[in-house]
Amino acid sequence: MPKVVATAPGKVTLFGEHAVVYGYPAIVTSIDRRVYVTATPRNDNIINISAYDLKTPGIIVTYKGSEVFVTTDYGKSLSAVSYLNKAVDITANYLGIKRGIDLKVKSEMPVGAGLGTSAAVSVATIAAYASAHGYSLSKDEISELGWRVEKEVQGLASPMDTSIATYGGFLKLVGERNEFHKEKLEVKVEIPAVIAYVERSKSTKEMVLKVKDLFERHKDVVNGIFRLIGEVTEEAEEALKAGDLRTLGELMNINHGLLDALGVSDARLNELVHLARVAGALGSKLTGAGGGGAIIALAPGKLNEVETTLGLRASITLRAKFGSEGVKVNIMD
Amino acid sequence: MPKVVATAPGKVTLFGEHAVVYGYPAIVTSIDRRVYVTATPRNDNIINISAYDLKTPGIIVTYKGSEVFVTTDYGKSLSAVSYLNKAVDITANYLGIKRGIDLKVKSEMPVGAGLGTSAAVSVATIAAYASAHGYSLSKDEISELGWRVEKEVQGLASPMDTSIATYGGFLKLVGERNEFHKEKLEVKVEIPAVIAYVERSKSTKEMVLKVKDLFERHKDVVNGIFRLIGEVTEEAEEALKAGDLRTLGELMNINHGLLDALGVSDARLNELVHLARVAGALGSKLTGAGGGGAIIALAPGKLNEVETTLGLRASITLRAKFGSEGVKVNIMD
Repeated sequence: MPKVVATAPGKVTLFGEHAVVYGYPAIVTSIDRRVYVTATPRNDNIINISAYDLKTPGIIVTYKGSEVFVTTDYGKSLSAVSYLNKAVDITANYLGIKRGIDLKVKSEMPVGAGLGTSAAVSVATIAAYASAHGYSLSKDEISELGWRVEKEVQGLASPMDTSIATYGGFLKLVGERNEFHKEKLEVKVEIPAVIAYVERSKSTKEMVLKVKDLFERHKDVVNGIFRLIGEVTEEAEEALKAGDLRTLGELMNINHGLLDALGVSDARLNELVHLARVAGALGSKLTGAGGGGAIIALAPGKLNEVETTLGLRASITLRAKFGSEGVKVNIMD
Repeated sequence: MPKVVATAPGKVTLFGEHAVVYGYPAIVTSIDRRVYVTATPRNDNIINISAYDLKTPGIIVTYKGSEVFVTTDYGKSLSAVSYLNKAVDITANYLGIKRGIDLKVKSEMPVGAGLGTSAAVSVATIAAYASAHGYSLSKDEISELGWRVEKEVQGLASPMDTSIATYGGFLKLVGERNEFHKEKLEVKVEIPAVIAYVERSKSTKEMVLKVKDLFERHKDVVNGIFRLIGEVTEEAEEALKAGDLRTLGELMNINHGLLDALGVSDARLNELVHLARVAGALGSKLTGAGGGGAIIALAPGKLNEVETTLGLRASITLRAKFGSEGVKVNIMD
C-alpha cells in the first residue's frame, strides 16, 4: 500500500455570501494556499493524526475505536482534527473497508479564518485515505463525501467550501443544500489579492442567525439587499470573464456596503476594508460570514502597499492568487 | 427701530441622503443646537458683522458697499460670513429697503460639519434683518429667501437645510430643487442622540459627483441602492411616528451600509459608526454627504457611554435632541 500526499486549496467567497442562503448566486474561488495530507496505511485499525501549522505549534491525536488520545491540545486545531477523523470514517464506510492510517496534516492557512481550511482538510483527507488504500475517487465523489463530512461535524453546512476545494478555479453557485447548482467560470486574467484576517468574535452560525433575524423584522428591505447582492454577483461574473478588474473592484466595494447593511461587518473589518482602498486596492470587501474573520483586497500592482497597510491592523495578512487547482493526489512510493 | 435676536436650529439628515438627489424621499430633523443672530439697525448703509464661536475665536468683517474689511480672518468663519452678507442683501432687496445693520452671530455648532450651520445662519439673519426694520416675514417667505441665499453663495443648493432651519421639527422631503415637496412629521417621542464629527476630506460636491460617477457605471445596481434607501426612509417614517426607537436604530444601520455601498463612507466614519454600536447605541449612521463629516447615533439611556467612546476618535462630539423648534425672533427693546 503506497504512502500518498493529497492536497486541496483554501477558498474565498468573492461575491454573494449570506444572499446565497436565500437562493441568490455566489462566486467563490480557490486560493494558492493549500492543506497537505500525507497518508500512510497501517496494518491495524488505528487512526493516528498529526496536525502541523494549523496556526498552532502542532498536536497529535490518536483514535483507538471510540477512545481519543490528545498529545497536545490547542483548541482550534483539535476542531480541525475532528474533520480528519470524520473524513476517514465516511470514506472507509463508502469504500466498505475498515483499515487504519497515519495522517499528517500541514496547512498554509489559519484554521477558522473563513478560508475553508476545514473543507480543504476534509477533501484532501478523503482523497488521501482512498488513494493510500488503492482506490481512486472521482471529483464528484470526493466533493459529495466532503460535504457529508462537513454536515456531520457541523450539523449544517453549505456544499460551497468542499466544492471549491475539490474542483478549484472559480465557481458560480446557485441555491443551497438540496437544490444546489455549480457552474465553472472561465477566468483568464491573473488576479493578485491580499487577504487579511482578524480574530472572529462570532461564529458563522451566529451571523447567519443575525441576518435571519433582520430578515424577519425587515423582510422587504432585506430581501431588496439580497436581490441587489445577486445583481452585483451577476455583474461580477461578466467582469471576471472579461478580465475587467476595475469594475470587479467597484463591485466588491458595493457588495461590502450591502453586507454592512445586513449587519455582518464590524469596526475591525470595515477598518481593514477601507485601509486597503486608501493603500491603493481596486476594491475590497469582507469575505465569508463576517463578525470578524477575513477581508480580501484586489491589489494589482499594489501588493506591497496594501499588504503592509493591512499588516498594521490585521492579525494575519497573506497574498493569494485566485483560481488555483483543486484537489490533487501524489503517490509517493 | 428695535434690536432683535433671531435664532434658528441646526439639522441632521436622519435618512435618505444622496438618494434624495435622485428623487427618493429623505427625512431631516432639527437639533437643539442653534445659531443666534443679534441685529441692531444703523442709520447708515454699512453692514457690520461680528461672528463668534463659529469654531474659531471670532472674526469681525465690515462691508462698505463693495469693500470688505476683515479684522481677523479664520477661513471657515469667513465663508459663514458670506451667508450673512448675502442674506442681508437678498432680504433688503425683497423688502425694497436699503438700510445698514450691525449683526452679531453666535453658533452652538461647528461650521462645515454638515449640521446646516450656514442655512441656520442665513435663515436667522433674514428673520433678524427684517424684524429689526419692523417687517414680519412668514415662514414660507423666510424659507424661500434662505434657499435663495444658499443658492447664490454656493451656486447649487438643496432647499433641505433652509427648510428645516425655518420650520424645525421633522420633515420628510421628496424631490429636489424645482419639484420639491415637504411634509411635517408628527413625532411624539423624545430622541436622544450623539453627533460626532471628523474633519471632512471631501466636499459635498465631490461626494455627489462620486455617486453620480458610480451611478453611471453601474446604473441598475446603484438605482437599486437608491430605491432601497427610499424604502428604508418610508419604514423609518412609520417607526418615527410610532416612537419605535429599536426599529429606527436598525433602519439607521441598514441605511449606513447602503451609503457605504455608494462609496460615500470612509474608514473614519465607519469606525465611529461601529464604535457607537459597540458602546450601546440602538443604531448609527453617517449623516450628510460623507467623505468625513458627521455621524449620528441613537443612544437612549446610553448617552454617556456612546459620547465617551466616540470622543476617543472624533474631533467633536455633541449631544443633541432631535426635532427642536424652527426660526424664532425675540425683540429686545
